Amino acid sequence: MSTVIKNGTIVTADLTYKSDVLVEGGKIVAIGEGLVGDKTLDATGCYVMPGGIDPHTHLEMPFMGTYSSDDFESGTRAALAGGTTMVVDFALPSPGQGLLDAMQMWDNKSTRANCDYSFHMAITWWGEQVFNEMEAVVKRGINTFKHFMAYKGALMVNDDELYASFQRCAELGATPLVHAENGDVVAELQAKLLAAGNNGPEAHAYSRPSQVEGEATNRAIMIADMAGAPLYVVHTSCEEAHEAIRRAKMAGKRVWGEPLIQHLTLDESEYANPDWDHAARRVMSPPFRDKKHQDSLWAGLQSGTLSCVATDHCAFTTEQKRFGVGDFTKIPNGTGGLEDRMPMLWTHGVETGRLTPNEFVAVTSTNIAKILNCYPKKGAILVGADADIVVWDPAKTKTISASKQQSAIDYNVFEGKEVKGLPRYTLTRGQVAVTDGDMTCESGHGAFVAREPNGTV
Amino acid sequence: MSTVIKNGTIVTADLTYKSDVLVEGGKIVAIGEGLVGDKTLDATGCYVMPGGIDPHTHLEMPFMGTYSSDDFESGTRAALAGGTTMVVDFALPSPGQGLLDAMQMWDNKSTRANCDYSFHMAITWWGEQVFNEMEAVVKRGINTFKHFMAYKGALMVNDDELYASFQRCAELGATPLVHAENGDVVAELQAKLLAAGNNGPEAHAYSRPSQVEGEATNRAIMIADMAGAPLYVVHTSCEEAHEAIRRAKMAGKRVWGEPLIQHLTLDESEYANPDWDHAARRVMSPPFRDKKHQDSLWAGLQSGTLSCVATDHCAFTTEQKRFGVGDFTKIPNGTGGLEDRMPMLWTHGVETGRLTPNEFVAVTSTNIAKILNCYPKKGAILVGADADIVVWDPAKTKTISASKQQSAIDYNVFEGKEVKGLPRYTLTRGQVAVTDGDMTCESGHGAFVAREPNGTV
Amino acid sequence: MSTVIKNGTIVTADLTYKSDVLVEGGKIVAIGEGLVGDKTLDATGCYVMPGGIDPHTHLEMPFMGTYSSDDFESGTRAALAGGTTMVVDFALPSPGQGLLDAMQMWDNKSTRANCDYSFHMAITWWGEQVFNEMEAVVKRGINTFKHFMAYKGALMVNDDELYASFQRCAELGATPLVHAENGDVVAELQAKLLAAGNNGPEAHAYSRPSQVEGEATNRAIMIADMAGAPLYVVHTSCEEAHEAIRRAKMAGKRVWGEPLIQHLTLDESEYANPDWDHAARRVMSPPFRDKKHQDSLWAGLQSGTLSCVATDHCAFTTEQKRFGVGDFTKIPNGTGGLEDRMPMLWTHGVETGRLTPNEFVAVTSTNIAKILNCYPKKGAILVGADADIVVWDPAKTKTISASKQQSAIDYNVFEGKEVKGLPRYTLTRGQVAVTDGDMTCESGHGAFVAREPNGTV
Amino acid sequence: MSTVIKNGTIVTADLTYKSDVLVEGGKIVAIGEGLVGDKTLDATGCYVMPGGIDPHTHLEMPFMGTYSSDDFESGTRAALAGGTTMVVDFALPSPGQGLLDAMQMWDNKSTRANCDYSFHMAITWWGEQVFNEMEAVVKRGINTFKHFMAYKGALMVNDDELYASFQRCAELGATPLVHAENGDVVAELQAKLLAAGNNGPEAHAYSRPSQVEGEATNRAIMIADMAGAPLYVVHTSCEEAHEAIRRAKMAGKRVWGEPLIQHLTLDESEYANPDWDHAARRVMSPPFRDKKHQDSLWAGLQSGTLSCVATDHCAFTTEQKRFGVGDFTKIPNGTGGLEDRMPMLWTHGVETGRLTPNEFVAVTSTNIAKILNCYPKKGAILVGADADIVVWDPAKTKTISASKQQSAIDYNVFEGKEVKGLPRYTLTRGQVAVTDGDMTCESGHGAFVAREPNGTV
Ligand SMILES: [Zn+2]
Ligand SMILES: [Zn+2]
Ligand SMILES: [Zn+2]
Ligand SMILES: [Zn+2]
Ligand SMILES: [Zn+2]
Ligand SMILES: [Zn+2]
Ligand SMILES: [Zn+2]
Ligand SMILES: [Zn+2]
Repeated sequence: MSTVIKNGTIVTADLTYKSDVLVEGGKIVAIGEGLVGDKTLDATGCYVMPGGIDPHTHLEMPFMGTYSSDDFESGTRAALAGGTTMVVDFALPSPGQGLLDAMQMWDNKSTRANCDYSFHMAITWWGEQVFNEMEAVVKRGINTFKHFMAYKGALMVNDDELYASFQRCAELGATPLVHAENGDVVAELQAKLLAAGNNGPEAHAYSRPSQVEGEATNRAIMIADMAGAPLYVVHTSCEEAHEAIRRAKMAGKRVWGEPLIQHLTLDESEYANPDWDHAARRVMSPPFRDKKHQDSLWAGLQSGTLSCVATDHCAFTTEQKRFGVGDFTKIPNGTGGLEDRMPMLWTHGVETGRLTPNEFVAVTSTNIAKILNCYPKKGAILVGADADIVVWDPAKTKTISASKQQSAIDYNVFEGKEVKGLPRYTLTRGQVAVTDGDMTCESGHGAFVAREPNGTV
Repeated sequence: MSTVIKNGTIVTADLTYKSDVLVEGGKIVAIGEGLVGDKTLDATGCYVMPGGIDPHTHLEMPFMGTYSSDDFESGTRAALAGGTTMVVDFALPSPGQGLLDAMQMWDNKSTRANCDYSFHMAITWWGEQVFNEMEAVVKRGINTFKHFMAYKGALMVNDDELYASFQRCAELGATPLVHAENGDVVAELQAKLLAAGNNGPEAHAYSRPSQVEGEATNRAIMIADMAGAPLYVVHTSCEEAHEAIRRAKMAGKRVWGEPLIQHLTLDESEYANPDWDHAARRVMSPPFRDKKHQDSLWAGLQSGTLSCVATDHCAFTTEQKRFGVGDFTKIPNGTGGLEDRMPMLWTHGVETGRLTPNEFVAVTSTNIAKILNCYPKKGAILVGADADIVVWDPAKTKTISASKQQSAIDYNVFEGKEVKGLPRYTLTRGQVAVTDGDMTCESGHGAFVAREPNGTV
Repeated sequence: MSTVIKNGTIVTADLTYKSDVLVEGGKIVAIGEGLVGDKTLDATGCYVMPGGIDPHTHLEMPFMGTYSSDDFESGTRAALAGGTTMVVDFALPSPGQGLLDAMQMWDNKSTRANCDYSFHMAITWWGEQVFNEMEAVVKRGINTFKHFMAYKGALMVNDDELYASFQRCAELGATPLVHAENGDVVAELQAKLLAAGNNGPEAHAYSRPSQVEGEATNRAIMIADMAGAPLYVVHTSCEEAHEAIRRAKMAGKRVWGEPLIQHLTLDESEYANPDWDHAARRVMSPPFRDKKHQDSLWAGLQSGTLSCVATDHCAFTTEQKRFGVGDFTKIPNGTGGLEDRMPMLWTHGVETGRLTPNEFVAVTSTNIAKILNCYPKKGAILVGADADIVVWDPAKTKTISASKQQSAIDYNVFEGKEVKGLPRYTLTRGQVAVTDGDMTCESGHGAFVAREPNGTV
Repeated sequence: MSTVIKNGTIVTADLTYKSDVLVEGGKIVAIGEGLVGDKTLDATGCYVMPGGIDPHTHLEMPFMGTYSSDDFESGTRAALAGGTTMVVDFALPSPGQGLLDAMQMWDNKSTRANCDYSFHMAITWWGEQVFNEMEAVVKRGINTFKHFMAYKGALMVNDDELYASFQRCAELGATPLVHAENGDVVAELQAKLLAAGNNGPEAHAYSRPSQVEGEATNRAIMIADMAGAPLYVVHTSCEEAHEAIRRAKMAGKRVWGEPLIQHLTLDESEYANPDWDHAARRVMSPPFRDKKHQDSLWAGLQSGTLSCVATDHCAFTTEQKRFGVGDFTKIPNGTGGLEDRMPMLWTHGVETGRLTPNEFVAVTSTNIAKILNCYPKKGAILVGADADIVVWDPAKTKTISASKQQSAIDYNVFEGKEVKGLPRYTLTRGQVAVTDGDMTCESGHGAFVAREPNGTV
């Protein structure tokens, strides 16, 4: 059965033109005028764009014997509702656990996914087993390894481990990723704040100032440079980190930065909310920042010094958040965003004139596919590409509300925000999953996307 | 009659893949495996890339009653020999001359072109006629207007004229271009050097230091920003100008920089050559720079803060150069490069590991087509695009020599340099113009490329 | 008759120590413990500091046949009230008027000064007479020449005039000063705003954005560099200008920036005041800026990339301001500040911890004396130095109010602001001019301070 | 007995004037015209300047059971010969050794000093004893604590230790110092180079690239900022580190950088010398750099973003250096320089026009005294200051040669260099120690200089 998308304007990272798109067998089989198919989707007044890719999610993330509330089923359903057709999640080995073991666990979690997905593998400790299994992981189609420079005593790895792992990545043609905050300093500041009686969610922000992120970003860039590897910096939230990335790029280094939709549109004043729940629900790392950092992030998207927009979607419920009442360091870190990333970015980016529609596609999809090396299977409107497509209606509006969302969390950090620009249709490998807000996605439809090493970008 | 390019690897600005390309009626009509055509070009071991675009040439440029030696026939022949399939030349009205008059003159010059071409229109004076004719020029398919901040008393326009013209560009959806050097200061330095008896070609470089270019670049960016226009800075040759462009981009401004292949590969030591002719043949503005500026330009291409590689090809003969014996300010400004841009950039960029093949395509062709708004007609390997294609043999070598070149000049600034990476075939709108160095191009085949205003880039 | 200042703590640009100071014949004759004099001033709890120097005032400034309201008498009285013991005013030749003529006019104005003063000479046009008279001006003890890059059609000079004058300064060992705004662009923006019906005082700020100042600063620096002269940039008000100065310093250039106390403490929201008079009284060039620029200016004082704090005191009355009702370009540019500079800077700089007391002395007095080459006659607590001394009481407070000020203007831009830190005594060449707010200064006491060329700074 | 220095020109950090100086009891007792004393030193044609202070020496430094060859006797004799009248050495506790113990050891070493000296205390490990003894150390007159971010497995401390110590410094009013190189990365690079068979002295430079220093500098600045302490970065050798310092200063942070005379005048080509001894004698950390870094360091001294010039004098003999034959990581790190710092800086700084004589005094003496908080006892020509004075003859020349030096090392890294500008007389606390190269210094004359915490700089 074939499907044709008619009367729309195709918008890709580098082109805008009117044409129909014919889909069959999960792929784009033709682009041209006057195409016909078994089924017709009307895209009048709409942009036909590559579906969004969220390069940074934590679905069914383990926490104190429970899990974050969005699993691969509800998480990918939320994604599709917002025009995102692929997510890349993090396989997180426990200290001492093998990488292949962890991958098995994440494979198991993802069986009910509604859209395609891939994994990053985290390097949470170092040893010969890790060194060896990295090769097997790459052979399994994972070419990206995540490193935490914070979360001391838990996920954090030290500089010599970073160097060793980055060097291994270089050998394997893989790309290291970093969560860049100086974990030693964060731990010291946390202790100091708690000792002074500052135990509320606002102290979370005080304990992770932008300088601490900027420093770690700068350090990771140097270590990658010495090890001969490129570097992808997740959740770049501030001018200091952006400055380090810019400076590296100016020296010809291959470094990418990933701002989150939350940091682009929300600020630290959220933590001043007298409602503990309100503030705690916004606790994530890095925390929301002063507005001047937002200017920096938007300019980075405009100039290309920042490359991708993600969510770090990690949907802890209010109940889980309350584990940290009386001690902000125990509040689980994470917020939602998967469902709202595309409409929020369109509203605050394209509607305001900051970004062109082509740039919107680049930072939500195409750049990500290129950097993660699954382009043009993903991130493209090209014959032969997967039919992961969003038919975007720039006139469609809604007010964001947890009460109406697909995501399983009981709140939404964007609650009450108006958005303009929403999917009319979302297609995952040719299957229509969303029609004007109605969900017709299918649990288990999503497939793992293997990504080769040695990307040419 | 159709032509198929077989067994090659297609390299575009964002993709690398093996596929055949079928060409018919001057356009790409199919991309895929196992294509057949009336004629077959073997691309085994080669990259199939969009033909190069040189955004900055001066063919048959008027000088003291004569003309620069390469006209549109020999110039475009030289271009094709080097893998370049489109040139953008500058229509230069004399002071007081109307823009449409000038365009007519350039139309007349270009009738014998061997490949496609377009024009930039220069704004060399300001008045109501210029203001009005700019609209007609845009309607004729020219969306770029060039401004000289140097050449005081001749082509130079002042800040209020720049502002007025940039504002007019903004209204018309056109993009202003600038030759950025502070003409007042250059004139003072020239006078001072001549007064001190420094009249040789090396004084040309002393009279145009990098600071003078950096300042003008910075000024043009501010004026464009105030007028609401984007800005394209031609022949960015130094760190100071690059820094101004970077800083602007970091503030979210839409500014592009264009290094020349000469500045990327040659340096100021050329002017120290005791042979007056040798030095004078390298006289161009901006002059060749200290090597540290080369590092800056290469890093700009790597990081994307510089966008295009051009030549400013303006082929004055040794005899014409000698008009400036005894007074360096009278040496006509300009060198060749059209034939050598692609091989020199491949050799010094891709062979050295500085640039990926995809980035090579971006900076020699695709970025240019996008910025000048003729993408994907040009700069693309896509079905429907013009079949301006170069089949690039990365193993082919030669030694550059004036004695063997297509260009009409009697010397070559790259004389004796070895290059690795040359066209096996060059196709202009489907016509095979070059086969392993043999020229089969056709005078008059080249057509004007109209470029719409309001590009989305 | 001798005077001894006892029990105070001497604070200079580089030292803090307890000692008495003995003054006789207008000079400091001894510094040490247990000094005795005919008269004793008690400095218990106070800092004994070099009197302030305001390097930038316009007293009795001509305007439309009238003058700004503070002349040398009331202006220097206001200065002394605030702890400032020397002012440097601008002699402004009319277009075509000789420099010596203008100096004579300013000599005449200054006969009633209550404290010492010096002059900068403005270069408002260029010609052989100006070139020649610059030497005579230097011989008269003026080693600084001011240039306006704005006020097109009036005071503005072009780039070639700047270069010529800066080169002349270099020959004479003098230092050029610039008012740095791009006058062409300001004129265009003014015309555009007026044409759009924006004629109120807020449009004054819109017509002079920070980019316009940054550009001119960058340009002046380049021209000075080419001409071989150092450069002093008056009223640096924004990050863009500061960035240009920083970048120049980083390249080893000798460039100084002078923020005004107004730009350090007031912001553009003043122009949004619905009271036309309120807004118009704040009209000066550059205008007040967004708060982020304040951060930049303070950081510049802390790091030494900005050198001096001035006022640009030019006291137009409300009545004079009203000349611009209906056309903001006709509002005379200027505000007061001479009386409040030192207390406002102490309150917002030292009390807040941004600046040390030593740095306060440096930026209000010593740096200025060094740059203008009248150190250590001025700006020092050293034996042999002029006894221009302020005994500063850090505990003394007041609320600024026009109703109680010495200045002749009918308002105060700092009206209602609380300050902490005020003079207990101000001495001008040994004469006690202020005692806890009581004025005992003497009209005509002030003398011209000649400043030699070729300062060693 | 009094001594008068007659007919000279006094040059301090901020003044240049002709005057005599009268010395008695080790102090300056009068400055003025026509002074008389028991003994007269003729300073005709000379500058009378504060004696140099070297803030960074390692005299009698322990190494493998032996010591570096210059002890406090020969080291301070060499210092005086070159116009330096005070050295600040590093007390280095062994891991686990108490600070007071280490101080006792350094007290013992210094008894034979020919000129005054002070100590920095190194924090080479962390624990309650160190925390507690820091207070006692401060009370003993040491307000500076050194931290090594390199030398992994030996002196290196980690980020949490840095934070803890910096915070302790902040409490005590002390200033932390850092040797800034990323020790983890250095260790990895060393291992990689050795594994690849690169064991010669040139590999020392390869193992410590400038990026590694820049990173650590940036990190230390952040940690100091978080801990609320200022920061002094020793031996700043490269643009990357300088950039980090500049950036910090621009944000208003109190950070100082100290280039060494070696890095200002020598470059990495020294390591390419085929003579193992020649290269190994130049092994120090950071290593000599590419010439572009020299430009950065000089610009830093000119602009004030770098504050002091030191030597890191650590005089290992050729025999000691040879301990590293076959393994560059075993070559003891250190070179001489104490005797040559002042003449080399004058020759390459003042004679070339890069620095004024006042700036020379600032960076060799006054800035150091201020930052280390012993000004104006040291670093000043003021009544009451210690009579540590150098009478500098700008016309005096010599060729540097190990065969004629005071230092005990058997070579000189500046061998064969011509210098212009040398001491005619050097006085240490009034005692004439050098007269035109003749040494009359006295072992044991040197006294410890206690330095209070809470400096006002
Ligand atoms: Zn994270
Ligand atoms: Zn995450
Ligand atoms: Zn040009
Ligand atoms: Zn040109
Ligand atoms: Zn002004
Ligand atoms: Zn003024
Ligand atoms: Zn060290
Ligand atoms: Zn050391």
